[in-house]
Amino acid sequence: MRLKRTHTCGNLNLENLNQDVILNGWVDSWRDLGGVIFVNLRDREGMTQVVFSPEVSSDLCNMAKKLRSEDVIAVQGTVNERPVDARNPNMKTGDIEVVCKELEILNSSKNLPFELKDYAEKSEELRLKYRYLDLRRPILQKNLIQRHHLAQMTRQFFSEHGFIEIETPFLTKSTPEGARDFIVPSRMHTGKFFALPQSPQTYKQILMISGFDRYFQIVKCFRDEDLRKDRQPEFTQVDVEMSYVDENDIMNLMEEYITVIFKKYLHLDLPLPFPRLTYQEAMEDFGTDKPDLRYELKIQNITSIFKNTTFNVFRSVVEKDGFIGALVVPQAVDYTRRQIDDLNEYVKTVGGEGMVHLKKTGNVLQGGISKFLSNEEQKDLLKRWFSIDDSIIFIIADQDVEKSQTLLGYIREHLANNLNLIDESKMMLSWTVDFPLLEYDPTEKRYVARHHPFTSPKEEDRDKLDKAPHMAKARAYDLIMNGNEIAGGSIRIHQRELQSKMFSVLNISPEEAVEKFGFLLEALEYGAPPHGGIAFGFDRMVMLLTNASSIRDVIAFPKTTSALALMENAPSKITDIQMKELGIKIANKK
Amino acid sequence: MRLKRTHTCGNLNLENLNQDVILNGWVDSWRDLGGVIFVNLRDREGMTQVVFSPEVSSDLCNMAKKLRSEDVIAVQGTVNERPVDARNPNMKTGDIEVVCKELEILNSSKNLPFELKDYAEKSEELRLKYRYLDLRRPILQKNLIQRHHLAQMTRQFFSEHGFIEIETPFLTKSTPEGARDFIVPSRMHTGKFFALPQSPQTYKQILMISGFDRYFQIVKCFRDEDLRKDRQPEFTQVDVEMSYVDENDIMNLMEEYITVIFKKYLHLDLPLPFPRLTYQEAMEDFGTDKPDLRYELKIQNITSIFKNTTFNVFRSVVEKDGFIGALVVPQAVDYTRRQIDDLNEYVKTVGGEGMVHLKKTGNVLQGGISKFLSNEEQKDLLKRWFSIDDSIIFIIADQDVEKSQTLLGYIREHLANNLNLIDESKMMLSWTVDFPLLEYDPTEKRYVARHHPFTSPKEEDRDKLDKAPHMAKARAYDLIMNGNEIAGGSIRIHQRELQSKMFSVLNISPEEAVEKFGFLLEALEYGAPPHGGIAFGFDRMVMLLTNASSIRDVIAFPKTTSALALMENAPSKITDIQMKELGIKIANKK
Repeated sequence: MRLKRTHTCGNLNLENLNQDVILNGWVDSWRDLGGVIFVNLRDREGMTQVVFSPEVSSDLCNMAKKLRSEDVIAVQGTVNERPVDARNPNMKTGDIEVVCKELEILNSSKNLPFELKDYAEKSEELRLKYRYLDLRRPILQKNLIQRHHLAQMTRQFFSEHGFIEIETPFLTKSTPEGARDFIVPSRMHTGKFFALPQSPQTYKQILMISGFDRYFQIVKCFRDEDLRKDRQPEFTQVDVEMSYVDENDIMNLMEEYITVIFKKYLHLDLPLPFPRLTYQEAMEDFGTDKPDLRYELKIQNITSIFKNTTFNVFRSVVEKDGFIGALVVPQAVDYTRRQIDDLNEYVKTVGGEGMVHLKKTGNVLQGGISKFLSNEEQKDLLKRWFSIDDSIIFIIADQDVEKSQTLLGYIREHLANNLNLIDESKMMLSWTVDFPLLEYDPTEKRYVARHHPFTSPKEEDRDKLDKAPHMAKARAYDLIMNGNEIAGGSIRIHQRELQSKMFSVLNISPEEAVEKFGFLLEALEYGAPPHGGIAFGFDRMVMLLTNASSIRDVIAFPKTTSALALMENAPSKITDIQMKELGIKIANKK
Repeated sequence: MRLKRTHTCGNLNLENLNQDVILNGWVDSWRDLGGVIFVNLRDREGMTQVVFSPEVSSDLCNMAKKLRSEDVIAVQGTVNERPVDARNPNMKTGDIEVVCKELEILNSSKNLPFELKDYAEKSEELRLKYRYLDLRRPILQKNLIQRHHLAQMTRQFFSEHGFIEIETPFLTKSTPEGARDFIVPSRMHTGKFFALPQSPQTYKQILMISGFDRYFQIVKCFRDEDLRKDRQPEFTQVDVEMSYVDENDIMNLMEEYITVIFKKYLHLDLPLPFPRLTYQEAMEDFGTDKPDLRYELKIQNITSIFKNTTFNVFRSVVEKDGFIGALVVPQAVDYTRRQIDDLNEYVKTVGGEGMVHLKKTGNVLQGGISKFLSNEEQKDLLKRWFSIDDSIIFIIADQDVEKSQTLLGYIREHLANNLNLIDESKMMLSWTVDFPLLEYDPTEKRYVARHHPFTSPKEEDRDKLDKAPHMAKARAYDLIMNGNEIAGGSIRIHQRELQSKMFSVLNISPEEAVEKFGFLLEALEYGAPPHGGIAFGFDRMVMLLTNASSIRDVIAFPKTTSALALMENAPSKITDIQMKELGIKIANKK
């Protein structure tokens, strides 16, 4: 190329008047106004208007007339002030134009399948197949540039706080919790396989045992699960581990990290500390361990009112130590029969059998189930829980406390969306702590770790591991932002004995434990310091901070929800020679 | 833990006198001097002497007596000045000691299989199996901390120069040049496979076509090849790509990068620009495209002298347009018969048939082949090439020019090592440019790309693609440091037509080209800007800069040369259920 740029398409202004400049970029658009050709030239930094005038050169004008959208060109010319009425205040370079004296066509473009600006409306399949065109849209460029800045800020913060970024391996070992591991056949050791890491969990613990003290890494992780909306088979994690700390040390420092990011990136001051809700509080008040605190609408626990109720539906729930919860919703007071039915239908889609409701008008309960309630119960409800004027009240009662609360949580979120209760300008962060350590898996008929098997139980709950494992709480904490989990972590077990006990509670035999995690168990015996950590879901974090509508809009080359790479067409078949080299065959499954 | 550190073990000095401090760390060593116990406490930052005195507490002393190496403890105490004769000038904290008032044992350690300081001498297998102990050694800690700093400096440099770090996928497509791809079976699309990237080459080109302009990434790459010394199946690359540039733009900016790193890291000013040798010059003068310029010892091309020689060995070489080269080595003038024989043996191990030699004493050639040379030839040699006094001269003659030069390159390197010609304190960087675009693969009976199929031929050599492909030169450049290739790159083909032509020269059919690289070929038609890039081998770079003796000493969890992870024991067998899910079987190969 002859004409190498002196400036980008985003940085010329009146200060550059009369300068001789060269720009390189794409023809974004093109107009012929009575023989004078106006081209908007685009690059990563912006857009500049380039003028081809017959007064300068009719040859140039003839060349310019043949330009098409997305041709790549270099232009040399003089920076001119635009006439006042032709200025564009929406363009950084809107006060000037470049009068072209030389044009070099660097590459031409075929007609696009669609105009760039229309891509957003096209199907995601098409966008992903022509990702190189999709990525030319300024909004996607901005997202990825912001992602870069957020990663840099993250690295700077952790480096300044004494953390060392250490790369952990990608070719690792498949683990028993690894049902969703991607596996990699070893050519040199036929019949054996590596696994891609679902997280660098054991490695970062080993790094603490190795004395690295403070580790972080922005790292790709892999999970071969059936993808839901906004999950990717490969995803990026900000992975952190610290020695000689407890929960508060980690939560405090992570609050500082998030605050710095918010300050630098959104110029927003977050109040510290973030609220810390126990798992139980979060479930009782919001019906989820990921409460969206941008709106109130708390669940009212009205179970105790119905101790002696004659209303059958509630009585059976109370007798079985269930949970009766209510959402008092003044904004929905005018809901029609139809709207209430729709809501009931929604409850069924999320696993409920249905809800009941009643209305409060002035100081009177009416409609719905009101006729089944005693005067005493009505009075109690009005006095203690339903103080808000004129509202509709939705009630879920279920003998399974967690199910009842979870359904109320779904309804709460559904109503918030439908009734526009969410202040989108708000950013609400909170911690959920004191999670149950284990949960019972009825399919596998054993306890499984709610976080992972390396999470430490609370000091005071160690005894419960034998007697009442389901009662033990974990030294775990999740960071919630606007109802999304953006990070999760825990204090780890740092003693061999406790780790072995944990494996046995999880019904992992000593032999299996040694086979799969022998190196970690052994390492715990050679002076493992107390340690803990956390991992942030970086894709989701970037999505929330850039206000993108999908994580696929903050990833350069995402897979579809069925884990396909449409541009490069992967996965694909491999050759028989490759397969033979690897010592594998395709099983006749389908 | 009760006692959380106020300081690290590396930062107390006389300024902290009489302060009450808490330290956390490992018991590095232990001495009992007449009832007073001295413990060296170690963490990432250093070592501090902790004193347990019966005058303070006999209980504490009794506890301290039971401590063992690598126990993890917390101590609270007062900072004391050491008596002048007990100071340790080799320790950052050598002027003080901490007199312990409280001791908390955080975790105990079994006896180590070996003392930490002895690990360096143990077998690499043992070191890798107990990597968590090996990594406690200060030298390995330092290497990894320096690696972190080098990565941070790299990111800072490229960010400041307008580069965006963009993550490219790990689950990609297997390519025809992908004989050494690691492959990953897809569970959701049975019978199909992803491949782990050998480099993000096509993605970074797509990013240029997408208009990102300047991209970089510090990224893991994968190659399943039979490992040589200092190769790893997963390795780290500093990957760079730029739009609207030519070779010089890239080389100039990369020189700036390297200069900044050297300045910041080694406080060394590298002279700019780095020497740029053409491939032909490098081969003629140094017998390699990776010349070590820390020592001279250039190859002398003495072919022309023997145009009319009667010495048979030389005449047959000259007649077949071969190459006769000499190394004039004054330092080896006293070589014995035995030493010369040994060198001849060495030449055979690297593929040569042997070399000849002669000696220069004063102004006379003697010994070796001198008797076969005419007076004329001797005179010519003395006049034009062998001006150095008293030396031994080694000569290789072969009809294959490149072979002849390569052998001389090996001998040059071998002699430099044996004769200590290398100034280890020097850092010599140079570029090798103007590589041949292609090389003929006699096994496959076709041309293969010397760099990769996306490398652009030199503008003036395009015509040669049809007529004389082997004569075409590439717009490629390698960065050499002390005889090691630390980076390689090229200007890429940015036009569909030329890329298709290149595939056809490589004997890749249009169908195969479309199947494997269809997306890239298509993308080239929608306005691809001129672009090029480079990739640095980060592991090797860190190794050279930290002066480590192996890349395994700058990687936290390296694999063995047979690609095994000894600590976690991978690769390993996976379950039948996993295999069934993935739709693969083990072939009965062995």
